[in-house]
Amino acid sequence: MAEKTIRAGIVGATGYAGIELVRLLANHPNVVITGISSVSYEGQKLSDIYPNLRGGCDMVLETAEVIAAKCDVLFASLPHGLSEPLAKLCADNNAVLIDLGADFRLHDEKTYEKWYKKTFTLPELHKKAVYSLPELYREDTKNADIIGNPGCYPTSIALGLAPALRNGLIETDGIIIDSKSGVTGAGRGLTQNTHYPDTNEAFSAYKAGAHRHTPEIEQTLSDVAGKDIKITFTPHLLPVNRGIESSIYCRLKEGITADHVSAAYNEAYANEKFVRVMPAGEYANVKNVRLSNYCDISLHFDAHTNTLIICSVIDNMVKGAAGQAIQNMNIRFGFDEAAGLTAFPPAF
Amino acid sequence: MAEKTIRAGIVGATGYAGIELVRLLANHPNVVITGISSVSYEGQKLSDIYPNLRGGCDMVLETAEVIAAKCDVLFASLPHGLSEPLAKLCADNNAVLIDLGADFRLHDEKTYEKWYKKTFTLPELHKKAVYSLPELYREDTKNADIIGNPGCYPTSIALGLAPALRNGLIETDGIIIDSKSGVTGAGRGLTQNTHYPDTNEAFSAYKAGAHRHTPEIEQTLSDVAGKDIKITFTPHLLPVNRGIESSIYCRLKEGITADHVSAAYNEAYANEKFVRVMPAGEYANVKNVRLSNYCDISLHFDAHTNTLIICSVIDNMVKGAAGQAIQNMNIRFGFDEAAGLTAFPPAF
Amino acid sequence: MAEKTIRAGIVGATGYAGIELVRLLANHPNVVITGISSVSYEGQKLSDIYPNLRGGCDMVLETAEVIAAKCDVLFASLPHGLSEPLAKLCADNNAVLIDLGADFRLHDEKTYEKWYKKTFTLPELHKKAVYSLPELYREDTKNADIIGNPGCYPTSIALGLAPALRNGLIETDGIIIDSKSGVTGAGRGLTQNTHYPDTNEAFSAYKAGAHRHTPEIEQTLSDVAGKDIKITFTPHLLPVNRGIESSIYCRLKEGITADHVSAAYNEAYANEKFVRVMPAGEYANVKNVRLSNYCDISLHFDAHTNTLIICSVIDNMVKGAAGQAIQNMNIRFGFDEAAGLTAFPPAF
Amino acid sequence: MAEKTIRAGIVGATGYAGIELVRLLANHPNVVITGISSVSYEGQKLSDIYPNLRGGCDMVLETAEVIAAKCDVLFASLPHGLSEPLAKLCADNNAVLIDLGADFRLHDEKTYEKWYKKTFTLPELHKKAVYSLPELYREDTKNADIIGNPGCYPTSIALGLAPALRNGLIETDGIIIDSKSGVTGAGRGLTQNTHYPDTNEAFSAYKAGAHRHTPEIEQTLSDVAGKDIKITFTPHLLPVNRGIESSIYCRLKEGITADHVSAAYNEAYANEKFVRVMPAGEYANVKNVRLSNYCDISLHFDAHTNTLIICSVIDNMVKGAAGQAIQNMNIRFGFDEAAGLTAFPPAF
Repeated sequence: MAEKTIRAGIVGATGYAGIELVRLLANHPNVVITGISSVSYEGQKLSDIYPNLRGGCDMVLETAEVIAAKCDVLFASLPHGLSEPLAKLCADNNAVLIDLGADFRLHDEKTYEKWYKKTFTLPELHKKAVYSLPELYREDTKNADIIGNPGCYPTSIALGLAPALRNGLIETDGIIIDSKSGVTGAGRGLTQNTHYPDTNEAFSAYKAGAHRHTPEIEQTLSDVAGKDIKITFTPHLLPVNRGIESSIYCRLKEGITADHVSAAYNEAYANEKFVRVMPAGEYANVKNVRLSNYCDISLHFDAHTNTLIICSVIDNMVKGAAGQAIQNMNIRFGFDEAAGLTAFPPAF
Repeated sequence: MAEKTIRAGIVGATGYAGIELVRLLANHPNVVITGISSVSYEGQKLSDIYPNLRGGCDMVLETAEVIAAKCDVLFASLPHGLSEPLAKLCADNNAVLIDLGADFRLHDEKTYEKWYKKTFTLPELHKKAVYSLPELYREDTKNADIIGNPGCYPTSIALGLAPALRNGLIETDGIIIDSKSGVTGAGRGLTQNTHYPDTNEAFSAYKAGAHRHTPEIEQTLSDVAGKDIKITFTPHLLPVNRGIESSIYCRLKEGITADHVSAAYNEAYANEKFVRVMPAGEYANVKNVRLSNYCDISLHFDAHTNTLIICSVIDNMVKGAAGQAIQNMNIRFGFDEAAGLTAFPPAF
Repeated sequence: MAEKTIRAGIVGATGYAGIELVRLLANHPNVVITGISSVSYEGQKLSDIYPNLRGGCDMVLETAEVIAAKCDVLFASLPHGLSEPLAKLCADNNAVLIDLGADFRLHDEKTYEKWYKKTFTLPELHKKAVYSLPELYREDTKNADIIGNPGCYPTSIALGLAPALRNGLIETDGIIIDSKSGVTGAGRGLTQNTHYPDTNEAFSAYKAGAHRHTPEIEQTLSDVAGKDIKITFTPHLLPVNRGIESSIYCRLKEGITADHVSAAYNEAYANEKFVRVMPAGEYANVKNVRLSNYCDISLHFDAHTNTLIICSVIDNMVKGAAGQAIQNMNIRFGFDEAAGLTAFPPAF
Repeated sequence: MAEKTIRAGIVGATGYAGIELVRLLANHPNVVITGISSVSYEGQKLSDIYPNLRGGCDMVLETAEVIAAKCDVLFASLPHGLSEPLAKLCADNNAVLIDLGADFRLHDEKTYEKWYKKTFTLPELHKKAVYSLPELYREDTKNADIIGNPGCYPTSIALGLAPALRNGLIETDGIIIDSKSGVTGAGRGLTQNTHYPDTNEAFSAYKAGAHRHTPEIEQTLSDVAGKDIKITFTPHLLPVNRGIESSIYCRLKEGITADHVSAAYNEAYANEKFVRVMPAGEYANVKNVRLSNYCDISLHFDAHTNTLIICSVIDNMVKGAAGQAIQNMNIRFGFDEAAGLTAFPPAF
């Protein structure tokens, strides 16, 4: 029996998350790409801009309006504020919207306003939207028509902390998160900071305590823990193309041992295809998840300060963006959750 | 109707070409990996050595003898001289051997002896072996039981020069080939030269005019041209993980124009899934073929010296090793030639 | 008036810290290198092993005994346990020993034994040794004949925390230190982990809560704070050749503001040639200190968790090893503290 | 006796060659920087733009007019066409101009017009200008007031070929030059091509047979050979910050052996501080000349095609730009030719 096939459109297809969506969807067994859109390159052939995709996707870039009318699912990868109108357009066209931007991630309008300097212009759509990190909120996703796809840092952090928080193994104050992201995380736009000679052989923090992913991280951790959580979050720019590593520091509650923690993580992720808890003594390394939808988590315990150190790694462009969006699509449309995401990470 | 499935074994599975074979075959629709072998790690789980493959291939490494007895095709990725006995073993087990090493590439024993300091110990096997660069020798491969898989540099060069030579467009003397290879080309073994701080931010030639791929290159070019060809070949070590770029310099024959050349290349590769002739003005770039089986070729013409410059790029580990080996397997067993090789190269 | 010139010898000259000493001392106005030693390459010319130094240092490698007899200062860059006998040799030859290894860093023998599995075999020498991080202990260095040169991570961390601790601005418990080091920090010895294809495009933590620099860090911080301090220290391997970044997390004491902290740091380092406190809003970046003896420090404050984030960067091979050793030599012999260390970091 | 000190100004100080000039001149024993200029950043402090130079050069950027009036030598690092008016300004101020741009490199106006689409607007200045590659034209430089500093590719190539051409050892037709340049060669301006994720793990040729350095290369080679020479020149973009490697292919004249060639090179450069001919069997590597004014040359001979392969490496920003400009200044003002250029290349 032939499996169901759906029509997918991609808005923002020439951005980094967009082009990664094209690359992965072009090889998805249940999807046919029916339209791609890009404001900057409208009317051009995608493979003229991205020669890696010649023979893979030679379609011409159209307007969002045109492609929304001919797809069952629309992926949007746009600067914040631009996905709300798209959600409306999708609703009118009976298409599901999977938004890789920030518009549908925060439940609380005040928080959104504080960090993004904008209000919800179409508040009724936000009520219908779900925040979908599948390993935590899979059930909500199955019937949603607006899916807020998580940010890259928040994905690595929420998966890294959820079992410890859900099982009450750690103190909820004083959590420190030191994250490092590959340069694709900064997008395709040209900046001095991502100019090759400025980035290569360089390393520094940025936006310490001030990154817009902070409220999203706190929203998820608070929800999982069942209480308000504040964290300290410092991102760093890492001179690699892909990958996020988050080193998370927290204090074990009295009576809790490293063994309790290890057992809780192994149990939490036993049936999760895309989360791998590393054997004791090994370290989560971005190289082992590159180009895949995996999140690898390793657990380390500093007995002399009673500190649990959780290392969580993902490919920021796959599990942190396009891969997770496809995982969400698979859930929403009843496909195998791993469909289109079966390629294993290369060793190098 | 269910498609045919064959059983594959991999000898030398923990080397770089070996692990790339595992990664790709683990996702091949017509293959089940039934055995993997490694002298260095016998008895260990592959995913303990290569954590990227956890969940993808958690098999235990066995001996070559054990796995040869339970496969239809055996891939061997070994230092030269070790594949001949394997070929015998495969013959005894009715398995096809695809050899990624040098043992079955050179037709002439004297040439082999000159460059590798060994003789053919089982000469009758060499008579049955074919050298299989599919775009040039596809027909030979369909019935072969011993398949010599081409070297990485020779693949990029033969594909780059074949249309020009076959159509008699260039002078056959004075061809200069300046190649650059990513560091995986040097293998997994530790050397000072591939120690990170020695390789990073470094670049140099090596083995100028003395690389063992020279006779293989000349064998193919001579065969295609129908006359003896000698080339000057200089490889360089490039500080990237993957990719070979060959810049090839030759003189156009009198009366031949850039347009003749372009037409010949487009015609030669019109039906080739894995060779892409770039539009005029674009340059073949290793980044556009990474992790794929593509060979991209761009053509440039220096009118003031009447020199044709051919730039040919491949991923040394895919089209230059594991991918081409799978392509050969597909041909030999009647699968779609691109089966298991459909993932598109990432943009970054 | 001609300035004083001293004779310097280097033991372990072919290791990474050793070769950096040669490079810098070969250009030092008050030093003539009179001998270099290496167990692995005895009898060979240094510039045959390190062609970058051809014309700069073409001396032949001798034994430690030979060179100790003809120098005023001996630099030793050796695995732990090997510098104690050298210290004896220096004492017998009236030479000053500057030890870049771990033998003379820890004051407490029990701590040394716990982390290095060895005892002090010549305890009387340890009484005469000083631990010399110049910005903190300059006075002790002026008359010392055995100088323990600090480790790379401890240098970045002690300089980053000293003003806050000395002035009682932060809580002394719960300090979290997340450090990242370039690959030269792992030395010249070949390991799978530092093989180019394994390191490039990779990133992970290692030895979380278990690195041998931990007791050295705690020794200095406790001394500066005047009370026992325990820290959580996690190093990471960073895919660059040079540079350490330490992101340090601590809680401000009640009543202390970001302005207090900034003022304390600017005052503490106002007269320090090699420590630069960055203007507010800028981030310490390893690229800005590469190949120099600088330590750049930036201060960031996360108000919503009352956390001070200190980013401290050095070149692990210069301020973290050879450069600081030369700084110590300059202090000990009465030269300008910056002599031989005046080259500015390149922009790229 | 105190040595003479001169006043230097730098126009285009925030470009890559400019900032390298500042870095090197700030440490030059005979120079005081009296003015720096940048159209883009006028009025700002240089160290706010380049924090690596904090404490090294905290001067404010002024106009070219202001600084020309207070210096003995003016370095200009500007896009072509902008240095002619500066030369006039220098003449009026009795200052020597050292131009790192293209305006004073080509003797022939027609050639300049063909490649740069501009004419000589002040032809009398061109008559006074010299093209100064010191190892070839040192004598001309001693009295020149307008010095055209060679391009980076031409420097590596002219030094690589001069002894062979001057001594008539090679055929002068059919010379093929395959060059690779680090990314700083493309300058500080932002382009998609030099955006980190597009450049990292990438490699390709560009402007094959069409690079503007071609006429400069041919001008020098023709002059050295005493006859018109045409070469085929293909540059490539190399994913490192610094360094150029040129692999040069030519045919030995009848009767000439590898030994003749080796002897000629060793003799030609016996007294040249900055050119190192490598021992037989070693390869010139960009890592061995990084951050130094050296040019390393290695010679290789492919007997089976009678081809001489010359590998020549420089740091494009030092010997290929700022370092050579300082070398020219030293010659012009009678300083030690190596003054300010004594730092040895680091091993990593």
